Amino acid sequence: MKTIDELRILVEKTLQAQTYPTQPVGLYEPISYVLAGGGKRVRPVLLLLAYNLYRDDVERALPAAIGLETYHNHTLLHDDLMDHADVRRGRPTVHKKWDDNTAVLSGDVMLIQAVQHFFALNAERGYEALQLMVRTMQEICEGQQYDVNFEQRDDVALEEYMEMIRLKTSVLLASAAKMGALLGGASEADAETLYRFAEKVGLAFQLQDDYLDVYGDPAVFGKNIGGDILCGKKTFLLIGALTKASAEKRLEILNLINDKTLEPQKKIKMVTDIYDVLDVPSLCQKNIETLYAEARRLWESLSLSEERKSALWDFAVSMLKRKS
Amino acid sequence: MKTIDELRILVEKTLQAQTYPTQPVGLYEPISYVLAGGGKRVRPVLLLLAYNLYRDDVERALPAAIGLETYHNHTLLHDDLMDHADVRRGRPTVHKKWDDNTAVLSGDVMLIQAVQHFFALNAERGYEALQLMVRTMQEICEGQQYDVNFEQRDDVALEEYMEMIRLKTSVLLASAAKMGALLGGASEADAETLYRFAEKVGLAFQLQDDYLDVYGDPAVFGKNIGGDILCGKKTFLLIGALTKASAEKRLEILNLINDKTLEPQKKIKMVTDIYDVLDVPSLCQKNIETLYAEARRLWESLSLSEERKSALWDFAVSMLKRKS
Repeated sequence: MKTIDELRILVEKTLQAQTYPTQPVGLYEPISYVLAGGGKRVRPVLLLLAYNLYRDDVERALPAAIGLETYHNHTLLHDDLMDHADVRRGRPTVHKKWDDNTAVLSGDVMLIQAVQHFFALNAERGYEALQLMVRTMQEICEGQQYDVNFEQRDDVALEEYMEMIRLKTSVLLASAAKMGALLGGASEADAETLYRFAEKVGLAFQLQDDYLDVYGDPAVFGKNIGGDILCGKKTFLLIGALTKASAEKRLEILNLINDKTLEPQKKIKMVTDIYDVLDVPSLCQKNIETLYAEARRLWESLSLSEERKSALWDFAVSMLKRKS
Repeated sequence: MKTIDELRILVEKTLQAQTYPTQPVGLYEPISYVLAGGGKRVRPVLLLLAYNLYRDDVERALPAAIGLETYHNHTLLHDDLMDHADVRRGRPTVHKKWDDNTAVLSGDVMLIQAVQHFFALNAERGYEALQLMVRTMQEICEGQQYDVNFEQRDDVALEEYMEMIRLKTSVLLASAAKMGALLGGASEADAETLYRFAEKVGLAFQLQDDYLDVYGDPAVFGKNIGGDILCGKKTFLLIGALTKASAEKRLEILNLINDKTLEPQKKIKMVTDIYDVLDVPSLCQKNIETLYAEARRLWESLSLSEERKSALWDFAVSMLKRKS
């Protein structure tokens, strides 16, 4: 079996070796640009890792891994356009470096190329993997739409939030794991267990992201602490606080979040103090622990030797432990 | 065999019977809205017609026809966003009725749904049809990008223009015909002939569109006469005129096209006069005739009885005869 680092290097090398038509320039240049932006390649690595649980020839699953990563980067490209985000991983986003129309069209062609990568699979289950991929693409669009809708709402329930992040973040990890298993020839039961396993890990990962945005160590956390608070993002912490607060406190939180006059550091401090009083960080951590316990149980139920599947658990732990 | 009108009604009914998830609203409402916008359903009808050359049970090919039409409407949605076009078929476009972000995301999900329709095919060649569809999607993005690039260029050659409209318009018609044939069980040779046949018809159709924009009968042509001239669009006529003109005349045409001060009717008249003097309309008509002769030759080479394939030629003729 290959280590996570070996798989990551394999993904990175394969991405770098991708060639695109040179014409028309405005269409294909942004694709190479976006895919060269780095990142941890979590999704394709998870796919290969799941495949590797059942078969050694991981190269055979590479088209699916590359298709998945291409699709993921398509969503980043279009999401950045919609969010008017100017920077991604320290570089200007496509609509900043080129323009909005380039972002629309290059994003479209990335989605199309993502599907095309699956045609290169000659595994019997390639078609099944593609169908899962496309169903997942639709769910991710739904997640993105819910996320957009939540911006305009103050009454989002925690259950709705969990469903939104499941669609927006978790199902792609879940599909990555299931696809790898399917291509590797796993039983339907194992493939489904791997789906649910990665779904739980994905949810925990997103909650941890929400948590670290406020409680992370500024020295190790990649982004500025309190960014979500300053832009009034509906995170688990904010929704949790609004849910637990009295009617009066609720209004206070909403006024605070919408206050554009407050000095940033003061605003972050005031909101964090309310989170602490309402015990939201511990609610968040409790949820993460529950999700990990569920993931662990699912992992244990996989019909594989402890030795064979230990790498998968290491991967899940590394997802949670990540600080950036 | 079904008539063209019967096939059109079948497509329309099937589109109307499509159901979409009700949540999240902002994601799926625009899809029904766009697909209810009418149009002549040329592409799905052509697909069914090609299928009908080989088999009678046209319902079996409907998922591909609906997928094709969904994809076509996805391109209209994203193209309208990129062109800042406010009206399509007499109704506000999606980015006007909703907003830009809705247009991006609903457009994405339409592309995804287009692919999903193909999964409903149980014909042996469904997977082959999907691969053709996705390759065609990529070509159409290339065509759109060339079209955008041409706006900034004054040195577009007629060959480049023909290649652009082939990619942007013809390949979808070509794929529709080939897909129908493949699903109907045609030989590879027939399927390929149908591809090239529809490709020629599509090119002629676009040249006719360019021609009618200037020389059409205002009473029957759907759009205002001279619209392309007023927005300086690089059509066959303009590129033909720039190609045939002397260096001096070339400058005169470019200045005229870029002149924002001229009264619209006067501008249209002046540009049309230059087209006439340079004999561009007859060059355009000559090209259309050549393309139709090629299409006719391809049509004749199909291994089908005259009686069986006559509907296909009627369709090709109706494409050319269309005035709106």
